[in-house]
Amino acid sequence: MKTYLKKINLETKKQFEIVDITVTVQAAVIESGIKTGIAVVFCPHTTAAIRLNHNEPLLMQDFMKSLYRLLPIDISYSHDLFEVRQNIAPNERSNGHAHVKSFLLGSSESLIVEQGAVLLGSKQSIFFVELDGGRSREAYVRIMGE
Amino acid sequence: MKTYLKKINLETKKQFEIVDITVTVQAAVIESGIKTGIAVVFCPHTTAAIRLNHNEPLLMQDFMKSLYRLLPIDISYSHDLFEVRQNIAPNERSNGHAHVKSFLLGSSESLIVEQGAVLLGSKQSIFFVELDGGRSREAYVRIMGE
Amino acid sequence: MKTYLKKINLETKKQFEIVDITVTVQAAVIESGIKTGIAVVFCPHTTAAIRLNHNEPLLMQDFMKSLYRLLPIDISYSHDLFEVRQNIAPNERSNGHAHVKSFLLGSSESLIVEQGAVLLGSKQSIFFVELDGGRSREAYVRIMGE
Repeated sequence: MKTYLKKINLETKKQFEIVDITVTVQAAVIESGIKTGIAVVFCPHTTAAIRLNHNEPLLMQDFMKSLYRLLPIDISYSHDLFEVRQNIAPNERSNGHAHVKSFLLGSSESLIVEQGAVLLGSKQSIFFVELDGGRSREAYVRIMGE
Repeated sequence: MKTYLKKINLETKKQFEIVDITVTVQAAVIESGIKTGIAVVFCPHTTAAIRLNHNEPLLMQDFMKSLYRLLPIDISYSHDLFEVRQNIAPNERSNGHAHVKSFLLGSSESLIVEQGAVLLGSKQSIFFVELDGGRSREAYVRIMGE
Repeated sequence: MKTYLKKINLETKKQFEIVDITVTVQAAVIESGIKTGIAVVFCPHTTAAIRLNHNEPLLMQDFMKSLYRLLPIDISYSHDLFEVRQNIAPNERSNGHAHVKSFLLGSSESLIVEQGAVLLGSKQSIFFVELDGGRSREAYVRIMGE
């Protein structure tokens, strides 16, 4: 059995931004030399997420509009009550909304590696979903198999 | 270490439909001969999802009603503005709502294989969640272990 | 290749409760002796979920408030129409809302094991999300690797 780990460095520019990391994940599988197994795509941040979907520009607006409609930025989040919170970091942001969005979406997706590539549908891309950018971000890909 | 891949073919009939694939996934574990490991259930479509829950008929209505209430079919989705989109397939549907539902739910679940079976709670079933049917669909199960 | 399975027993006290299981999951990796691989955290219940986020007390209120706003407890869920449902257990609860919340969040997260520990962001904790407590609950961690 072989294992391989790739760290992906990202620079996001906007509060909400979807970064397509499909090519980088597929490259990681080739680098790993693994032909058959699984790939875990993991987000180590609490205001970002990993999701798969169709990379169609107008659809990116729908993801954004729907998330902001369900979890608006202009309602009260207790996480943003800096007057009562403890242990606040000096660079802390008002980002309660982004934590809840990340909580709803999820931090990982598990993919199938077959014939030396991630098995994806013809319309499917792998997304790093930024919910509180712009920032320096990371995603990880763990590949495991033979 | 052994790996096994099963492709599950499905025919959905309705726009929203939950297909219980538990028996097929459990059969895949038996076919694999793997006793201890993991099983990744994966959806290669961008208007469908994989989820686990209780297969109780009235609850299926609640999943449907809640998703349609949160992401209604009668509001505007930019993905459906065919007058401004590029590269539209001839058989393209107005399915922005279904992409967002799929994005919210997720494309994979990772399960535990123990004593030659998927470890599930007594009320737990594995669902392929159709959000833009009826169509020919696929789900994949990757089993890995010993 | 090695595999290891840990069952985590929990006692929740409130209807909505987030239990931080990070320390227990990290201990399981040490017990497993596995240095490099993956860890699947799995919830075998249909009214609970597994998620990762920042364990900040006020943020826990935001997760709760947002889920109850999106999926209120005081609207009608078909699952709770005991007058029409079949095969109702003697101790059945009116918990349609909790099933839908669990369906939305998800039953598993896949984590990366590296250098003998789960790779997590500095703000990231692993949560068992109780949506219909208080109850005796279980979570499972499957570790696989070398």
